[in-house]
Amino acid sequence: MRAGFARTGLRYVHLYQSKNLDKNGLKLHSTQDLLQLLGFVKQSKSGLVHWLPLGLRTLNKIKTIIKRRMEDQGRAQEVSLSLLSPKALWESTDRWINSELFKLKDSKGSDFCLAPTCEEEITTLMGSYISSYKDLPLTVYQIGRKYRDEKRPRGGLLRGREFLMKDAYSFDQTPQDAVTTFENMNKTYDLIFKDLKVPFVSAWADSGAIGGDLSKEYHFVHETGEDIVLECNGCSNVSNVEKCLSYPHETNTYTGDVSVRYALNVARDTLLCLYYPKNRTLNWNLVLAAMEKDVDSSLADVSNETVLQLFHAGKNEDDLMFSSVVRVMDCRLSSKANFPDFPLTQYLKSNFSQLDDVSLVDAEEGEICGACEEAELKASNSIEVGHTFYLGQKYSKPFNVKFTTRDNKEQLCEMGCYGIGVSRLVAAIAQVTRDEMGLRWPKAVAPYQISVCGAKSDELLEEVTNALKAWSPEIWVNEDPKVNLGRKIATSHNLGIPICVIVGKKQWPYVNLEVRAPYMTETWLTKQAENGETWGWTCDTEQRDLIKKHRVHKNHLKDVIDVILTDM
Amino acid sequence: MRAGFARTGLRYVHLYQSKNLDKNGLKLHSTQDLLQLLGFVKQSKSGLVHWLPLGLRTLNKIKTIIKRRMEDQGRAQEVSLSLLSPKALWESTDRWINSELFKLKDSKGSDFCLAPTCEEEITTLMGSYISSYKDLPLTVYQIGRKYRDEKRPRGGLLRGREFLMKDAYSFDQTPQDAVTTFENMNKTYDLIFKDLKVPFVSAWADSGAIGGDLSKEYHFVHETGEDIVLECNGCSNVSNVEKCLSYPHETNTYTGDVSVRYALNVARDTLLCLYYPKNRTLNWNLVLAAMEKDVDSSLADVSNETVLQLFHAGKNEDDLMFSSVVRVMDCRLSSKANFPDFPLTQYLKSNFSQLDDVSLVDAEEGEICGACEEAELKASNSIEVGHTFYLGQKYSKPFNVKFTTRDNKEQLCEMGCYGIGVSRLVAAIAQVTRDEMGLRWPKAVAPYQISVCGAKSDELLEEVTNALKAWSPEIWVNEDPKVNLGRKIATSHNLGIPICVIVGKKQWPYVNLEVRAPYMTETWLTKQAENGETWGWTCDTEQRDLIKKHRVHKNHLKDVIDVILTDM
Repeated sequence: MRAGFARTGLRYVHLYQSKNLDKNGLKLHSTQDLLQLLGFVKQSKSGLVHWLPLGLRTLNKIKTIIKRRMEDQGRAQEVSLSLLSPKALWESTDRWINSELFKLKDSKGSDFCLAPTCEEEITTLMGSYISSYKDLPLTVYQIGRKYRDEKRPRGGLLRGREFLMKDAYSFDQTPQDAVTTFENMNKTYDLIFKDLKVPFVSAWADSGAIGGDLSKEYHFVHETGEDIVLECNGCSNVSNVEKCLSYPHETNTYTGDVSVRYALNVARDTLLCLYYPKNRTLNWNLVLAAMEKDVDSSLADVSNETVLQLFHAGKNEDDLMFSSVVRVMDCRLSSKANFPDFPLTQYLKSNFSQLDDVSLVDAEEGEICGACEEAELKASNSIEVGHTFYLGQKYSKPFNVKFTTRDNKEQLCEMGCYGIGVSRLVAAIAQVTRDEMGLRWPKAVAPYQISVCGAKSDELLEEVTNALKAWSPEIWVNEDPKVNLGRKIATSHNLGIPICVIVGKKQWPYVNLEVRAPYMTETWLTKQAENGETWGWTCDTEQRDLIKKHRVHKNHLKDVIDVILTDM
Repeated sequence: MRAGFARTGLRYVHLYQSKNLDKNGLKLHSTQDLLQLLGFVKQSKSGLVHWLPLGLRTLNKIKTIIKRRMEDQGRAQEVSLSLLSPKALWESTDRWINSELFKLKDSKGSDFCLAPTCEEEITTLMGSYISSYKDLPLTVYQIGRKYRDEKRPRGGLLRGREFLMKDAYSFDQTPQDAVTTFENMNKTYDLIFKDLKVPFVSAWADSGAIGGDLSKEYHFVHETGEDIVLECNGCSNVSNVEKCLSYPHETNTYTGDVSVRYALNVARDTLLCLYYPKNRTLNWNLVLAAMEKDVDSSLADVSNETVLQLFHAGKNEDDLMFSSVVRVMDCRLSSKANFPDFPLTQYLKSNFSQLDDVSLVDAEEGEICGACEEAELKASNSIEVGHTFYLGQKYSKPFNVKFTTRDNKEQLCEMGCYGIGVSRLVAAIAQVTRDEMGLRWPKAVAPYQISVCGAKSDELLEEVTNALKAWSPEIWVNEDPKVNLGRKIATSHNLGIPICVIVGKKQWPYVNLEVRAPYMTETWLTKQAENGETWGWTCDTEQRDLIKKHRVHKNHLKDVIDVILTDM
């Protein structure tokens, strides 16, 4: 047996000496602080962390789950691209201007960025291999570090400047094929998140800066989440609020103050006046949908005054008199509502048109689902952990990635891209599963499944440890000479290790088990009824809140652990 | 069965369509070109590569071997540090001035480099956990990307600007403990390189810019290597030429032109005149050893004139007259040799001293080994693939990493560091093992151990493939619809896959095996004698040069493959 606790949990060297954290202490810490205090990661600079052995084990387990599913169900091949991405590529897609790129020069003065995502690189790379329809479909993925110079990095792993990401990219012959691949990848994501054993929802989403036509997000529902997803009680449609269409129970009933937002159509010859209730938030995606995309969305972030100036520019009074104006009315507004003044002073009403019955604002819980137009929406806070996109030709076009069809024609590839925040998942899972005793990992991602504690290193501890290690690689022994047995058990629970095995002279040849992770009663109750007597297996009826206790003869320790793990 | 060759070897999409490389074609390519043509990597920019599926499989196999040995024998825990390392740390050790650092600023103007190595970071990080002698010994390692802005990146993976490195760092209580750890790590390295199944030598080496007192290098001996190692026929001592002490068979016999190199002692009050044969190369490490380190090695790269100016500076003629001068004579020089003029015009010979019988120049093959002073040295070109250092307190001192001893005293940690060039190993192994047919991977690092080829996808191919895939994850099926059977077999051999299984209607239910990797005859000859008849196993006596052929009944294919793999 190797000496020293230091082999497995670096932080113990420090944490249990000087901090002496107890249950109440842990309760007060943020999840990010917990991960740091318990030796999973250590922040080096704002938004940057060093991964310590325990954290790295959890991270690697998540990586392994993702890798297997991506290859088996996602039919993706693994690649690993250079992190240094040359400026020219990013200029081709107008993304070099992104202020969140970490940029650097090499000694010859060439400009690079640290890749925050790889559409540019992968499209170029695959373009050099794809020539025929026989080469398609083709999906590649990688799991590697990415960089984003967040102005306000926060939540540590939840939004870091350096993070581990799984990014995948697909290439298909036709839009239909690409949508099939997109759907298959969403099924693969479902399997990945099921493997992690953390409840999740997938929601239709806005494709944002990545672009493209179809997009889904994967979320953990949690009250601390920064996103909001809306789920319909009736049709089960789930959407990010950014993308969620809703209607009020009764239209045209809002009689309060009305806000207006000015916009221009794509040709910039028509003024759009978007009216909506002052107590609601305008939703730009819904505006685009209502106007069938004929909105200049580059003006989404400029002020009303600037929009009007742009509209007035180069027009004399006569021109303005004959201006084309569309008034777009959120369906919640009553004609008796308190509308703001109209921005033009002289105009011909006959040039105006009006669009009614559209929904322009962020959905709210209790409103009617825009998908089924029947049932009510339920809103939840959530943490985003994955995102899938059908991209179309957004990247194959600028990089001219074509293939020869069966009919010997040249055609642009249809692409998709698919991300999972791997390091973010560590923090998100910790956040969603933790309790007042500290972390509480699902079996699949716990750094170890089983810890073994004894008052000190002796023959009994060694016998149990050796037997378990020969059986499973998931064994962690707390051999810290600086702490007593009670602290060792508490540590195991604080760390969130699912099962803690306690070895002591008093009960020998029986050992105690304390179970920290939630587990069902399906298998183990049956098995205990069957084998309880022969295995020397008893279970306290009086149980502490968060910990369930079992006792078993040492010869049947593995049998009982096996049964309990099956129920997790 | 999944469709499409594209799943496993991207490059085939392109390579075998347009290039149609044959044996002679491959012979002419550099190993780096081979790796690129055969779809292992693709260069993105000078010194930067993208890893493709085949290359990544080989890389990951090497990583797995290293990881297992580092944990089991090296007793090291895995960590993963941030790549962005802040300027202040590098200034503490005067290494920020390194012109090969990739430097960048974040949006707040803070300076970072992309870590080329992690002594600064790891010492700081571990310093926050180490407090007591009970925390030691402690060794951590990581396998991750590193960056070095090489002025002339070349050989692709052999000297890239972005590379994968295994770096480990040890912390001990005493120099004795640290040397024990250093020795244990060297044993671990021996096991790692044995696992890779490529012949290697370990050589005493110069510790260079890393600093420290003991250092070993690991090399693959190969005529294309840029390093030179010298091995003694007698005492088996192996050294890098940088560190190799040698003597001529007869001293004081060189009568030709003599070169001189001026230097100063550390106090800069004594002029050292280093004399050596003009046809040899001065070795600065040997000079340091000869002078018992009393040499100002910061002057190693300045001209003789500059050294003399420094020595003259602030001295009047009288001072110079009484100058202290040491003449250091390489033991090869005869007094009759043609010495250059003495640099001082007026001097007192009585202030001179002379050091004879030292060896100041790079060793050459055939000279006497300086370690045993008996046997002759043999010189070989080699490729460096690993390096171990005992560092002492070089980093624990500037970062003040102390622990409390058993006697309750504060003491600085003793450190070591240990590197392996992981991506470099891919190129080095390829280089050392390739032949005129292309790559020829050792079993342990081949992207796949077994390829299966058939004229086209049919039931027979499917039966064999499914049976093999259920038995081993090491199966690659070339399903490229664009090439015929001959090309598929050739591809397997070009790629260096150890065993190629050929399925065809003609021989069915027998299948052919072509063995590409070298294998011994120990097991298989015995097994064939025992089971040849029942297994339907025959082996051509007439064999092509580089390929050995077997034939076996399909029901015993796995048995025969198993036997042959055992012999590899």
